[in-house]
Amino acid sequence: MSTTTRIEISTPGRGFQEITSELHQAVRHCGVTNGLCHVFLRHTSASLLVTENADPDVRRDLEQFISRLVPDGDPAYIHSAEGPDDMPAHIRSVLTCTELTLPVRDGRLALGTWQGAYLWEHRYRPHRRLLDVTVIGA
Amino acid sequence: MSTTTRIEISTPGRGFQEITSELHQAVRHCGVTNGLCHVFLRHTSASLLVTENADPDVRRDLEQFISRLVPDGDPAYIHSAEGPDDMPAHIRSVLTCTELTLPVRDGRLALGTWQGAYLWEHRYRPHRRLLDVTVIGA
Amino acid sequence: MSTTTRIEISTPGRGFQEITSELHQAVRHCGVTNGLCHVFLRHTSASLLVTENADPDVRRDLEQFISRLVPDGDPAYIHSAEGPDDMPAHIRSVLTCTELTLPVRDGRLALGTWQGAYLWEHRYRPHRRLLDVTVIGA
Repeated sequence: MSTTTRIEISTPGRGFQEITSELHQAVRHCGVTNGLCHVFLRHTSASLLVTENADPDVRRDLEQFISRLVPDGDPAYIHSAEGPDDMPAHIRSVLTCTELTLPVRDGRLALGTWQGAYLWEHRYRPHRRLLDVTVIGA
Repeated sequence: MSTTTRIEISTPGRGFQEITSELHQAVRHCGVTNGLCHVFLRHTSASLLVTENADPDVRRDLEQFISRLVPDGDPAYIHSAEGPDDMPAHIRSVLTCTELTLPVRDGRLALGTWQGAYLWEHRYRPHRRLLDVTVIGA
Repeated sequence: MSTTTRIEISTPGRGFQEITSELHQAVRHCGVTNGLCHVFLRHTSASLLVTENADPDVRRDLEQFISRLVPDGDPAYIHSAEGPDDMPAHIRSVLTCTELTLPVRDGRLALGTWQGAYLWEHRYRPHRRLLDVTVIGA
């Protein structure tokens, strides 16, 4: 059995947005008891990740770390016409993930206690991000 | 068809632990002939990866590379109350992977000749790590 | 329902090779209408990724960024017998991805408009790379 949904997330610009409850909702009532929930980001300048959901400083430190590792506006970038945050956004998305596969157990998304699912917007400006969700199992 | 197992791995602290044989066992006799084996780590301070399984120096060099890239106890971290290895552990897990999807062929986990599956513990102290395995296919 | 194919890609050495059309072909006519297409690289010194498919400078900048981040022939590597590009290739593959899971919709691989799937060869010399593709769904 396989069900599909599309989720739209509006981001206010660079930063993290929790999507755990949207994913819980996509899984609930979809008819799959045990299996997998796959989430695919249809973009190459943002990321999807599972990380610690308790202390927001973890996300602040992640953003700070990656912005040092992948500097905005590095003169070494050839692809720079779309702004100083564009090529860094592509690099950030390649260094992290743009898809998630998460377990479904007893009809529910089954994350660990300290895990949340996040969309990580890498562009400065607000964007509309589309996620294709596939729930598969029995 | 979809089957689920939970695997518990005790780590002695930072370093790699091969989990290939545990995954082979989860796939064998589960009834799926061709499909996928998904492994999900229920934690945000360790990683799962597939890497070279012949020369242990590869894992030594991986550990050495990442410990230079993501320094322990960096004063830039705000999230530091749980020790100098805690925020680096979250960053390491975001830069690598915390889930694997591996092919199942003829009822067996089908890795390449030089591939092994590993749990990479990023914390200094021993931890008990839970993996949720889902095998799906026909 | 689950179908499997093996794809062989010959690389001319370090660099990106688009595999989107090979994946489209593996999905088309395989009988799955809605579900997932999983692609697994049977090697530990190359990567699979989805990135921007319009401007080749994006791939040039990705290569340039990673070659600065993971220097070839770094004297810190212990695993160096197979050449200055061997250990960097393993590190690059761990920092990026070696498998993809992509949505299948209406019998077709469903990527975003600006997304292409690529094999990223990290070794200097030409290699023959094997991909195991599993399409699963209903």
